[in-house]
Amino acid sequence: MLCLVGLGLATERDLSLRAFNVLAGCDVVYLEGYTGVFDRLSELEDLLDRSIHVLSRQEVESSPELIERARKHNVALLVQGDPFSATTHVSLILDCVDAGVKYLVVNSSSVFSGVARTGLSLYKFGKTASIPFPGKNFKPDSFLRVISDNLKIGAHTLCLLDVESDAHDFMTIPEAVRIIERADKKDSLDYRWVGCARLGFPDEVVKWVKPSTLKRFDWPAAPHCLVIPSKKLHFMEKEALKMLSD
Amino acid sequence: MLCLVGLGLATERDLSLRAFNVLAGCDVVYLEGYTGVFDRLSELEDLLDRSIHVLSRQEVESSPELIERARKHNVALLVQGDPFSATTHVSLILDCVDAGVKYLVVNSSSVFSGVARTGLSLYKFGKTASIPFPGKNFKPDSFLRVISDNLKIGAHTLCLLDVESDAHDFMTIPEAVRIIERADKKDSLDYRWVGCARLGFPDEVVKWVKPSTLKRFDWPAAPHCLVIPSKKLHFMEKEALKMLSD
Repeated sequence: MLCLVGLGLATERDLSLRAFNVLAGCDVVYLEGYTGVFDRLSELEDLLDRSIHVLSRQEVESSPELIERARKHNVALLVQGDPFSATTHVSLILDCVDAGVKYLVVNSSSVFSGVARTGLSLYKFGKTASIPFPGKNFKPDSFLRVISDNLKIGAHTLCLLDVESDAHDFMTIPEAVRIIERADKKDSLDYRWVGCARLGFPDEVVKWVKPSTLKRFDWPAAPHCLVIPSKKLHFMEKEALKMLSD
Repeated sequence: MLCLVGLGLATERDLSLRAFNVLAGCDVVYLEGYTGVFDRLSELEDLLDRSIHVLSRQEVESSPELIERARKHNVALLVQGDPFSATTHVSLILDCVDAGVKYLVVNSSSVFSGVARTGLSLYKFGKTASIPFPGKNFKPDSFLRVISDNLKIGAHTLCLLDVESDAHDFMTIPEAVRIIERADKKDSLDYRWVGCARLGFPDEVVKWVKPSTLKRFDWPAAPHCLVIPSKKLHFMEKEALKMLSD
């Protein structure tokens, strides 16, 4: 059986009791190490009292071995946040169905609901944007379309920032702001956004300020994300943003 | 201190290890009993080895006592799903800030990411709609606006179904379909929706069918929710919907 287990939003202690039990019954535990970089691996190994093998993108995506191994053994794949947040994990389940291999999903906390800690209503979030690291000949700006679609219907945009897992390089809020500003040729987004660092950690930081201030602020360590709110905020949202951002 | 603790998507074992520890350090444990109805209270009490007091809407919302109690004691309020999913819990935190009472939030799994189990991309979900029980002189249809806004930008709509906590009455998928159909005078939504029962439970059921079929199906117990997908599905979403719905 393949057990897709959510690690949760922040530390190893966001694992659920169910996840903990499921992992205890697994023959081998992998950590998916490319949609996020979990920086508390040794604490997690201590907690579970076993070693964990970190898998690269290639090992997860182009690996019939993982599925074949799960045919005979109980194989756990730990995933940051909720296991279904990334499309790649849905594919893995489809591969199981195709191969006739049993699977199990253990849900967990995720930035998709944790972002409501900003004070913005979760009901008013629209489509989610990915902000990718630009390549040499690759300057994607599809996130702008997502943001403008959301603004049209009065929805907030959660922007998830890229991770280059090999280099252990997390995109920071200042980098993301620069990438969005560069793509936004019409300069239509120059109002207060919400920068969120370490959501769900004891030392989380949320700031509701102009992009220029987001770029200058001295943020704590990753993970970071950004929210570009609707231009029309409910007065309760404004009040909450004021009180819950530093 | 007021500890707002997420119970998670399904059973008492969706509590995180952190939640479990926080609850152990609390003097009193309440359960918010009106945005959801938790039907495993005695299992939860067994797990925590203590009694839990269920609070009504009035006791949570118009209760300075809760905040005052948290000034002197460690008070836990258990909330289904992630604690920030409902606006009412954000208000509670604002009350704490106002009163100078410390608070702590423990995130958990939630339908807001769990719904990706349908195979629909979480990135493509738009604003969330609430489907309320109609009253005698009260037939709200604001959910239609949310659905049509989302359709305009190619986004899926998660529809959360009402709970009448006093009567322990959960709106079912067939009821919700009837309410939406009645409001949709133009009959513009007659295509395949996704019905989800018991997401995150071992016996979850997901069906991707026409509303007429959703109404006839013999669903398992609550909780139920609905997704009205974008009319333009990515082929991967179609494939996943096909394979992951029964």
